Amino acid sequence: MPYTNRQLKLAVRPKDLITPDVLVLSESPIAPLEEGQALARVKYLSIDPTMRVWMADIPQYMPPVQIGDVMRAFGLAEIIESRHPDFKKGDKVSGLTGFQEYALITGKETRGFQKLPSIPFLSDINFLNILGINGMTAYFGLLDLAKPQSGETLVVSAAAGATGSIVGQLGKIHGCRVVGIAGTDEKCKWIKENLGFDAAINYKHPDWKAQLAAATPKGVDINFENVGGEVMQAVLDRMNLHGRVVLCGLISGYTKQDPGLASFGQVLIKRLRVEGFIIFDYVSRFMEAGQKLGMWKMTGKLESRETIVKGLEKAPDAINMLFRGDNIGKLIVEL
Amino acid sequence: MPYTNRQLKLAVRPKDLITPDVLVLSESPIAPLEEGQALARVKYLSIDPTMRVWMADIPQYMPPVQIGDVMRAFGLAEIIESRHPDFKKGDKVSGLTGFQEYALITGKETRGFQKLPSIPFLSDINFLNILGINGMTAYFGLLDLAKPQSGETLVVSAAAGATGSIVGQLGKIHGCRVVGIAGTDEKCKWIKENLGFDAAINYKHPDWKAQLAAATPKGVDINFENVGGEVMQAVLDRMNLHGRVVLCGLISGYTKQDPGLASFGQVLIKRLRVEGFIIFDYVSRFMEAGQKLGMWKMTGKLESRETIVKGLEKAPDAINMLFRGDNIGKLIVEL
Repeated sequence: MPYTNRQLKLAVRPKDLITPDVLVLSESPIAPLEEGQALARVKYLSIDPTMRVWMADIPQYMPPVQIGDVMRAFGLAEIIESRHPDFKKGDKVSGLTGFQEYALITGKETRGFQKLPSIPFLSDINFLNILGINGMTAYFGLLDLAKPQSGETLVVSAAAGATGSIVGQLGKIHGCRVVGIAGTDEKCKWIKENLGFDAAINYKHPDWKAQLAAATPKGVDINFENVGGEVMQAVLDRMNLHGRVVLCGLISGYTKQDPGLASFGQVLIKRLRVEGFIIFDYVSRFMEAGQKLGMWKMTGKLESRETIVKGLEKAPDAINMLFRGDNIGKLIVEL
Repeated sequence: MPYTNRQLKLAVRPKDLITPDVLVLSESPIAPLEEGQALARVKYLSIDPTMRVWMADIPQYMPPVQIGDVMRAFGLAEIIESRHPDFKKGDKVSGLTGFQEYALITGKETRGFQKLPSIPFLSDINFLNILGINGMTAYFGLLDLAKPQSGETLVVSAAAGATGSIVGQLGKIHGCRVVGIAGTDEKCKWIKENLGFDAAINYKHPDWKAQLAAATPKGVDINFENVGGEVMQAVLDRMNLHGRVVLCGLISGYTKQDPGLASFGQVLIKRLRVEGFIIFDYVSRFMEAGQKLGMWKMTGKLESRETIVKGLEKAPDAINMLFRGDNIGKLIVEL
């Protein structure tokens, strides 16, 4: 200390993608630590579609980020100074660091910061994907809600994304035929050749709905939905009677006024069960998922991949990358 | 015998409402009964929104009615001649009679015809509403899928219809606060004053969404949805976290190209469970429901009401009455 913190604060709410006026960089000195405080240097920021929702002033599952606040983000950090009983210098932690270089951890209000355990074969960055929010989301969404049975057909959208790529692999571990939908041939190649998906469909191909039909000859039993809109509709049209839809995300609508518009007609006719799902309802069971996911990772049954962008000032456009589909696997900003 | 049958056959598929060219009356003599056949004279036809779906050449839960076929309909009939071992003259039966004056029951292919039991305090017509498809739909949709708990708030749309009016009363029996949505003040008055709904909202009133909010001060735990579209959207907007939506019908869309368009955004954010539901999945449990519903009817806990139209030739426009909202309670054609 004396440290200067660089922070990205929400200046105006975005209309569509994030324009340069939305998140504004500011600098401020960090005051000397008081008793009960710890200071963490942020190393990695997790970039997630839900951030776009947090920035909008609409009803949602957490309070929206307020104008003038540091942009909310999950991240990994390292304690560099501590007067906090639970943390010591050198501890690696995960939590809601926000879009800033330093995060202050204060008293009991630790914003859910947790120390990272040191586990063989797992790098720190795995706590942002397989053992992070994405792994937890894939685990509970697929295994707890959809309960896949061997021989069933699972279709996952945004399949080369951080969550979708894990969902598909968990489907394979549980004996499903797994079909992924993604937006580039490179993504399709990765999930098919490296992750073992049975088929991969590029939804930008004009013929993609026919390809989806051909890849799901027995129909679709489970749809793990991350996208919404036209992609979701096409999968609903392929669903079998009494199929299950895990509604995890509606990214196609997050930059529009009316997210997730699709027809409920198929839900009725096919007697589907559609369940909305947000991982924060499962916090009390993260340990259970972490043990299973870590084991699958260590035994080579789960692959992961990151797209890394360097520098805090690149973080706003990194959010846009998600909506443009520029990332493969987990999108991370490294500070 | 010699009987002449009058039948309404599907001549062309309807585009919107049923126009006079859609169902065409024809007459044909009925051949003498063969061994294993019985002839039933149709007395009452049940008019249901799903008929409009049966007439459309779209994927659905049963094969669509084919051009040239007698229009499919559920009805009550009386056996007038029998060479069938299971039926004798004078038996009252229910089943898929179709839009015709006489229904032939042949061998084992009895189209599900069942003899009506004679039960004190129950008229035959109750087998078309409380003890018919509508009662079964209300019973399993509400009690099996939504599992209402005392103190929860239930909103039912098309609340003065045959199914909705029973759903609301079952909700009251199970201790719910019940709010009905209907399309005329007369319907609202009936469900509130005669059926004991806690509140009734006329969705044609300009202020109806504010009224819905006022009538659901603790939000909505269960939506029994018969309508879809804007009505469904307004209820979704009032749902509580982890609420349940029983998707029973989407009548607002049956005469349009894209039925049931609404946003899945609320399903995700509120972590709702939406289940499509068609009563034919529950046939094996009809006896269970019949006993309970019959008991509630006999003890005065279930009211019912019919709108009766006379004459087979009025049956096509009776279907339109459903979509115009012209009926209160069960809509029946009496032959």
